[in-house]
Amino acid sequence: MKFELITKDPGCEARLGNIRTPHGEIRTPAFMPVGTQGTVKGLLPEQVRSLGADIILGNTYHLYLRPGHSLIAALGGLHKFMNWQGPILTDSGGFQVYSLGALRKINDDGAVFQSHIDGSKHFLSPEKTVEIQEALGSDIMMCLDECIAYPADRKSAQEALLRTTQWAKRCREGKKNPEQALFGIVQGSFYPDLRRQGVEELMKIGFDGYAIGGLSVGEPKELMLETLAATAPLLPKEAPRYLMGVGTPEDIMEGVFQGIDMFDCVMPTRCARNGLLFTNEGKVVIRNARYREDSSPVESGCDCYTCQNYSRAYLRHLYVAGEILAMVLNTIHNLRYYLRLMENIREAIKDGRFVEFRRDFLARMVCADGNGSDNNVN
Amino acid sequence: MKFELITKDPGCEARLGNIRTPHGEIRTPAFMPVGTQGTVKGLLPEQVRSLGADIILGNTYHLYLRPGHSLIAALGGLHKFMNWQGPILTDSGGFQVYSLGALRKINDDGAVFQSHIDGSKHFLSPEKTVEIQEALGSDIMMCLDECIAYPADRKSAQEALLRTTQWAKRCREGKKNPEQALFGIVQGSFYPDLRRQGVEELMKIGFDGYAIGGLSVGEPKELMLETLAATAPLLPKEAPRYLMGVGTPEDIMEGVFQGIDMFDCVMPTRCARNGLLFTNEGKVVIRNARYREDSSPVESGCDCYTCQNYSRAYLRHLYVAGEILAMVLNTIHNLRYYLRLMENIREAIKDGRFVEFRRDFLARMVCADGNGSDNNVN
Repeated sequence: MKFELITKDPGCEARLGNIRTPHGEIRTPAFMPVGTQGTVKGLLPEQVRSLGADIILGNTYHLYLRPGHSLIAALGGLHKFMNWQGPILTDSGGFQVYSLGALRKINDDGAVFQSHIDGSKHFLSPEKTVEIQEALGSDIMMCLDECIAYPADRKSAQEALLRTTQWAKRCREGKKNPEQALFGIVQGSFYPDLRRQGVEELMKIGFDGYAIGGLSVGEPKELMLETLAATAPLLPKEAPRYLMGVGTPEDIMEGVFQGIDMFDCVMPTRCARNGLLFTNEGKVVIRNARYREDSSPVESGCDCYTCQNYSRAYLRHLYVAGEILAMVLNTIHNLRYYLRLMENIREAIKDGRFVEFRRDFLARMVCADGNGSDNNVN
Repeated sequence: MKFELITKDPGCEARLGNIRTPHGEIRTPAFMPVGTQGTVKGLLPEQVRSLGADIILGNTYHLYLRPGHSLIAALGGLHKFMNWQGPILTDSGGFQVYSLGALRKINDDGAVFQSHIDGSKHFLSPEKTVEIQEALGSDIMMCLDECIAYPADRKSAQEALLRTTQWAKRCREGKKNPEQALFGIVQGSFYPDLRRQGVEELMKIGFDGYAIGGLSVGEPKELMLETLAATAPLLPKEAPRYLMGVGTPEDIMEGVFQGIDMFDCVMPTRCARNGLLFTNEGKVVIRNARYREDSSPVESGCDCYTCQNYSRAYLRHLYVAGEILAMVLNTIHNLRYYLRLMENIREAIKDGRFVEFRRDFLARMVCADGNGSDNNVN
């Protein structure tokens, strides 16, 4: 993997870059659609690509449990299995295991957990997650980290950080395939000095890229932004920076502002399946009766296939009728919204006008909250 | 609408033809994928077209109840609403109302029924179904008929036939739009003389095409084929002949043999969603453990997108994981299987070798039942 920093915005930390991987290039800042179980839910890989995605994310936890990483390896790896020829980033499975709550137990060795599918017992260690991700054959692998809940007292945060650092070292040492990149993950809860310590320790080990984990775990938005602002600038400039699991379009805008290069979130795809559509005039809850006879597209001026060919009335009909196509068409729109946003962000950085772009965008979003969009419905 | 009979097979009743409609041509014998609620479940219209479909079927009953024919008319008609630019045939809603059982009551005026969605009361008459279908703007409309259950005594069959004839006349008289074709439907249960009487009466009224209804209602296969063989040759040669709701690939082969030009059935799409896939070597139940590590496509040699790009192991994984893409990819394969079958049938008729083609096909299907396919699973 090779990261090239093309330019930096003069007014903030925003960066334009390019990551070269064995499966192609990733233009940064990049948004990675989530393909949890070996599919971006509802879409063909060709559709995902044509919406503007350079890279997708696969979930190690899910693929390990079903269909199993050995099976995927035997069938030629995840790219071939799911027919996605572009770059893939796999997470470590740590966050899913953390989310299992009572079904998991973590100690220095790793995490013992029970499958959410059949209750079977499993053990995930730093070495094991690298082994799984090498079997999957992703272009970018993630270290196993310990994510802790919000709020966390300083002592727990410190312990989780220590463990995360030790695990990062073990991941680095366990890695065998030089074709696959490995990213470290910064923890440290919402303590700026712990975050700084986390960054320094990861940099000593040395990774191909650095991620910020442990955000968006229930904390107030301001605290998230504060911690992001305190952490991102510490990360090495010459490596890609990834803000994990984030987030809303507004969050992405803030992340880019702070110098983040990569994002992932289930929001565009999950919201789509629930009939919540993103537009520049605010959110559209497509089941609402106000769209019953609405012949206009979801978002006027949108270049996506859904907006080019279908009315809100049709999308409402499909959604109310429970048709599969509702999820497909909604997902196309939402992903295109996110991926076009990334295109516009990259253009703005290239032109040195990202600060203005961000200001206008955030103002428009605030405005949409008041002007009759469905923003307050959800 | 204009029907052109291109050629007839020398060894049987099979016909090659062409129907011209305001929305394009239909090559016959044709299979019409079913788009019940304004969508062929799981697929984009472009996908349906590229699989080889010339025409799709829309369900008047469903579209009338939701979103409503007036709404669709106000939005420019069904073609525009659902973004399908090719020909559409709409049924009359009669069969769905018949299927409601206790929720409907039929008399000479029409049928009073309760919506399966919200229990609301509705009245469907011959005039009303034509009005609805004219609002939808389909290329081919169907008359309201009275379908009766199997077995039916002669007296009930006679009464239903009489009503069907009277309703056909009222549909013909109620029709206003000369751009839309109207097909009559032959009833008469499994009494050959009643079927003959039905055909004669419909021909007296005069329709753009003739359909055989009231088959595949639970009768033994042999009785279905017998009645088909006794009815189809009576239909006027110069108009298209449509066998409603049929059927399996074998049934279609028999229908073509007897001179049928058009078919529709939910089988390829519904089976796909249930993980049952059609192949020339018999059926594949994709959830079966035997496909867990199977790297081969669903059907070797199949030209569909699914078979060209995915393994049985991947399709099994998607199905077991409950992914939307399972339904999409399975539907693509099954529809392509059906539509390629129609292409091969048309080629065979064109070359005057349909009798041989049918014999080989039926022999292969019988063979598949014994050679380890999943045919006996369902």
